[in-house]
Amino acid sequence: MSRLWKKYEEHMFKLSAYSMVLGTVSFDAHTVAPKAGADYRNERLAYLDGEFYSMATSDELLKLLEQLDQADDLTEEQHKIVKWHLKDLKRTKCLPKELYVEYSKLTMKAQQQWEIAKQTDNYQLFKPYLLEIIAKNKEMLKYLPGGEKGYDYYLDEYEPGMTMEKYDQFFNLIKEKLVPVIKEIAKKPQVDDAFNFLYYPVDKQRELAELIMKYIDFDFEGGMLSETEHPFTHPIQKNDVRITTHYYDHQLTSSIFSVIHEAGHANYNHSIRDDLADTYVFDNISSGMHESQSRLFENYLGRSYHFWDNLFEPMKKIFPEQLKGVDQKQFWRVINKAECSLIRTEADELTYPLHILIRYEMEKGIFDGSLDLENLDKIWDDKYEQYLGVRAEKPSQGILQDVHWSDGSFGYFPTYALGSGYASQFIKAMSRDLNIDECLANNDFKAIKKWLREKIHQYGGLNLPAEQMLIATGEPFDPNNYTDYLINKYSELYDL
Amino acid sequence: MSRLWKKYEEHMFKLSAYSMVLGTVSFDAHTVAPKAGADYRNERLAYLDGEFYSMATSDELLKLLEQLDQADDLTEEQHKIVKWHLKDLKRTKCLPKELYVEYSKLTMKAQQQWEIAKQTDNYQLFKPYLLEIIAKNKEMLKYLPGGEKGYDYYLDEYEPGMTMEKYDQFFNLIKEKLVPVIKEIAKKPQVDDAFNFLYYPVDKQRELAELIMKYIDFDFEGGMLSETEHPFTHPIQKNDVRITTHYYDHQLTSSIFSVIHEAGHANYNHSIRDDLADTYVFDNISSGMHESQSRLFENYLGRSYHFWDNLFEPMKKIFPEQLKGVDQKQFWRVINKAECSLIRTEADELTYPLHILIRYEMEKGIFDGSLDLENLDKIWDDKYEQYLGVRAEKPSQGILQDVHWSDGSFGYFPTYALGSGYASQFIKAMSRDLNIDECLANNDFKAIKKWLREKIHQYGGLNLPAEQMLIATGEPFDPNNYTDYLINKYSELYDL
Repeated sequence: MSRLWKKYEEHMFKLSAYSMVLGTVSFDAHTVAPKAGADYRNERLAYLDGEFYSMATSDELLKLLEQLDQADDLTEEQHKIVKWHLKDLKRTKCLPKELYVEYSKLTMKAQQQWEIAKQTDNYQLFKPYLLEIIAKNKEMLKYLPGGEKGYDYYLDEYEPGMTMEKYDQFFNLIKEKLVPVIKEIAKKPQVDDAFNFLYYPVDKQRELAELIMKYIDFDFEGGMLSETEHPFTHPIQKNDVRITTHYYDHQLTSSIFSVIHEAGHANYNHSIRDDLADTYVFDNISSGMHESQSRLFENYLGRSYHFWDNLFEPMKKIFPEQLKGVDQKQFWRVINKAECSLIRTEADELTYPLHILIRYEMEKGIFDGSLDLENLDKIWDDKYEQYLGVRAEKPSQGILQDVHWSDGSFGYFPTYALGSGYASQFIKAMSRDLNIDECLANNDFKAIKKWLREKIHQYGGLNLPAEQMLIATGEPFDPNNYTDYLINKYSELYDL
Repeated sequence: MSRLWKKYEEHMFKLSAYSMVLGTVSFDAHTVAPKAGADYRNERLAYLDGEFYSMATSDELLKLLEQLDQADDLTEEQHKIVKWHLKDLKRTKCLPKELYVEYSKLTMKAQQQWEIAKQTDNYQLFKPYLLEIIAKNKEMLKYLPGGEKGYDYYLDEYEPGMTMEKYDQFFNLIKEKLVPVIKEIAKKPQVDDAFNFLYYPVDKQRELAELIMKYIDFDFEGGMLSETEHPFTHPIQKNDVRITTHYYDHQLTSSIFSVIHEAGHANYNHSIRDDLADTYVFDNISSGMHESQSRLFENYLGRSYHFWDNLFEPMKKIFPEQLKGVDQKQFWRVINKAECSLIRTEADELTYPLHILIRYEMEKGIFDGSLDLENLDKIWDDKYEQYLGVRAEKPSQGILQDVHWSDGSFGYFPTYALGSGYASQFIKAMSRDLNIDECLANNDFKAIKKWLREKIHQYGGLNLPAEQMLIATGEPFDPNNYTDYLINKYSELYDL
């Protein structure tokens, strides 16, 4: 092994130690930690974030990466790893440390405040933090190379290669193709989903979650499920990938699909090749690619009829009263009920990208200065009325529904729709090699996971999204796969 | 504020950031973390332990503390804090960093192995780690100032001022006074405790634990209850004190008393004065003092008749079938049933100190070289036969029952018995100011907590155990209070 590479691995070990403890403590804070300890905890996390920043952007590491970039005894993959790392380091290094630490403190506090604001349905509690986060992001752009591009900078950060121009095209296609279908469905009779809102005790839902995770072959030895206000996945290391869900005691399907969604994310990190697992590309997968895997699990598999062949009867045993008289067909129709609604994470596949479009337009407007920041909550509601014809009665159903802005994750939302699009193309390619329905019906989820591992997961974030798409499907990404899939699926469901 | 003190507080802030994350990740590892991630996690924790060691023993901090020790603008309490910190720093600084890190790695691995060994009842899995821990402790003694005193060094570390000579006297009194009582009770008819071993579903036990914690006014905002193989308390900061328990589905009382015990610990850290909470004495309370508070909660209060006045009926509502026909009197007699048994944490108050005596004698023998280290498991069983007349059938009931040695905590065990002794004197003093039974009967646990806070908890580890005893009770510690209390209590229970 190259002497320089060995030195680099030593740096990576130290950085991974810090990110491991920071990540674990943050996960702990989101799940079980006592509330009263937040200020003490956040002050110290911010300090250690600063220590991490100093190590992660040290001149020594920069020099080492530059040497490695020029070295001739690295493998092609090692060169790729160095390239990603160097690109990110150079960006981060431009931020003054004080600003970095200040921002870290701000977002920790903001997440806390967001949670309280959402629980008490009071946007005013969160608003000053959101405005401060926006201001700080604009300030940071001034330091960052390429920051003059504004929102494009963030789009590229979450999904290398993406720009407003490309997303505009993507969303225009979606509007053009899907809005007519949504309108047509609105005239059709709807399936009866009353059973979905009966009382479902949380401990029974936990039982169901475990059942589903077993069916999809979740790695319990190297992973776990916990509970939070907003579900997420946290990959700490290959053998410690954590997912969370949120149980509502009067809604059956919400936690089902958040569990499947997050398990899709977890499966990505669990399936990275061992020799890449401790490298920079373990935790630096593009958001679009990551979301493609969670959305693929959640929608393309989880909402398919045959996914439930082995789960529907066991689920009825857990909820015999609530599901009395419901058959698999009705259940399948309910989990695919298309209707304009308020909550993104509960939305059906068809209307989902419009939820994303709203956030995308708002983020664009926040960064080009065209939005009135004093009235973001109202603008949110107006856009829902415009695109989906529904209006939130309280902010927890409107601007407070998502955690992302409290974390400063501008540019993330569009990757949900893009990832859903990627997933359609992956499914199309997978169908050439596998009979997916048969795998599901035969309780052979492993075969599906094997295909995904070989074509996608094993590489982690080694490849650019466009390269990864070519490797897995042999073709560049074509969003028509996405709209075609949705139109076909919903035409069948609603007899259009 | 003194300029030097301010500088000291800055050091303390940094150290507290490291100990917070190390502590939280360790708690996470003991409770929820996926098993497969242990090696990755432990390697990195050991590295950060080393970083912490370097900061905690830096020449700069040593010099600063020495200056503070001589400074004339500190309060008396500040001087005490500096004194404790300086004493510990000087000790720790004598250990080579490599040895410190190696030992940290070893104990993390050993705790993992202990857990597996206990679960699979295979002492051989743990034995090599235990022997290595013993060897490393002997090696470390060579570096430590006062290390030539052997086991006395560790006794003083856990309970400043204690020595084998003093503990010998203490345990001799216990043997002399209590063994005859134990023998007499063995001839008496026993209470029927069959109900205690019926099926008690874990989720119902969780409900009961919460009920008990509410009754004793546990601070849920700044604390929490979790689950582990071996119950413990982890004080991360004043507003984040965590306790754990272990539920057995065929034993009612085990988790009840572990919850009360650990809540007694937690209450100590929760009640430290605000201006002392972020200082060195928050987490540096002598083990004897800390155990005095857990044992006081568990036994002197939790096993008293009136503790159950407000809990017995609610508990029967949770377990109506299992507790059918059981009244408070019978329950009280069962939780005070005295009999020679194998498991320390399940032992009654009367035989408990003999469990400790066995461990104390073994630790003495380990460090003076008189024990055959190859046969510690057999020696353990022999001593149980000698002192308690019972012999373990499997190592999980013998040498594997306690976590402490896997953590290298030699010198800790005797503080359980000593702490129980302290507690008797605290209760005697408290009884002069309060009618304890009345407080319990009137659901006024707050009054008891207030007394403890004023007399003991507020100071944290500011005072030497002997000083603390004088402050709280006005008298030096007299172990006769302990034996008198036990003899009186059990004479009444068994009509001696």
